[in-house]
Amino acid sequence: MDDLEEIRKLKARYFRGLDSKDWALYEDVFTEDVVVDLRVAGGELYRGRDQFMAYARGLKLVQSVHQGHMPEIELISATEATGVWSFEDYNLWEDGSQNHGYGHYLETYAKAGGRWRIQTMKLSYLRIDRGEWAAPTFVAGVQKLGHLHGANPARP
Amino acid sequence: MDDLEEIRKLKARYFRGLDSKDWALYEDVFTEDVVVDLRVAGGELYRGRDQFMAYARGLKLVQSVHQGHMPEIELISATEATGVWSFEDYNLWEDGSQNHGYGHYLETYAKAGGRWRIQTMKLSYLRIDRGEWAAPTFVAGVQKLGHLHGANPARP
Amino acid sequence: MDDLEEIRKLKARYFRGLDSKDWALYEDVFTEDVVVDLRVAGGELYRGRDQFMAYARGLKLVQSVHQGHMPEIELISATEATGVWSFEDYNLWEDGSQNHGYGHYLETYAKAGGRWRIQTMKLSYLRIDRGEWAAPTFVAGVQKLGHLHGANPARP
Repeated sequence: MDDLEEIRKLKARYFRGLDSKDWALYEDVFTEDVVVDLRVAGGELYRGRDQFMAYARGLKLVQSVHQGHMPEIELISATEATGVWSFEDYNLWEDGSQNHGYGHYLETYAKAGGRWRIQTMKLSYLRIDRGEWAAPTFVAGVQKLGHLHGANPARP
Repeated sequence: MDDLEEIRKLKARYFRGLDSKDWALYEDVFTEDVVVDLRVAGGELYRGRDQFMAYARGLKLVQSVHQGHMPEIELISATEATGVWSFEDYNLWEDGSQNHGYGHYLETYAKAGGRWRIQTMKLSYLRIDRGEWAAPTFVAGVQKLGHLHGANPARP
Repeated sequence: MDDLEEIRKLKARYFRGLDSKDWALYEDVFTEDVVVDLRVAGGELYRGRDQFMAYARGLKLVQSVHQGHMPEIELISATEATGVWSFEDYNLWEDGSQNHGYGHYLETYAKAGGRWRIQTMKLSYLRIDRGEWAAPTFVAGVQKLGHLHGANPARP
């Protein structure tokens, strides 16, 4: 059960790092040789953390919202696990366009040095709504989210 | 704790089976004599898995998105449990209409042969937005979701 | 693990109590001297359960939807814990305006008399969409949600 909880928190840091643009936190959820497959979602295949992080850091996002739901995590061995998550993402891009999507992650995890990390990550969408809808009334902006950064921003 | 995790994963298969139209996976989350009460949600009462599955398979959905949130699961005995979930659903129908809803599931679970299944399921909505909004930019279509099917689609 | 599960269910009652307007359930998730900080979200700082509950009960909501996602809960001692949650809220106000928001809770919890409660709660938004959108097709209305009230509304 501790491994399951560690993997759920790993994925929580993945989402929190991405939406608060805490790249140090985000980068650390992946193994060095992670493979990220965005091809079914209309994107590319990334080999290795450096290649994927160059892509992630280059995204022209004003603000992103990512939610994970309904994890199905299975331990395959003491150091290997799989995970299925449903997710929702809602992104505001620098050019004013927005997309609101719904889909699934299929993932594997590896444990090394006592830490679980994402080893492979594959994404697909059930549906995407895309548009130039009215701008949101409020956007925190990624530069104002330092209070969400770090290992545990709730710690007093 | 293992029972709680099994019930959470049971409900995850419920959602994944429904949205990927993996009817074999979906059907197997219910007991044979399941009672599904959709009356508060404006629907019918279904007695037995066969009756409910005939209804579910007949839904004229192009694509559905269902998310579960915030489970409150309690073990009543070694073979009985209850669950409260909040949920969100977002459905695209064959006639072009769409509904986006928010509500709760009230459920009971039964364990037999080492497996938990849904024994009763009751649904209610806090709110439903319904419309003929702009069609989504991308819809996977239920025929293209085979990669989400089966007991563990994340397994390499 | 039992403590983590108790804290997750505590937060589930927080959301369920708020959306079904079960104020007895809602009030009981807070310590008497809870501090609720809504300043980053454009609101006020509330000291003590009575002060915060006066604010909460006075909200002019026709209906609210609150979802919690991706908990990161850490036990600091046998009676202290921290939690990070992402959330989504969708509110319909008596004047017809609506807001749909996405953000995070940063919280601490205290255990006393065998029960965990929220000790501090801080809220921030990534994004808020606000408008006078078309009224929803269906709104349960807070007076029709008695079936969601109480410690365990799923109990037969």
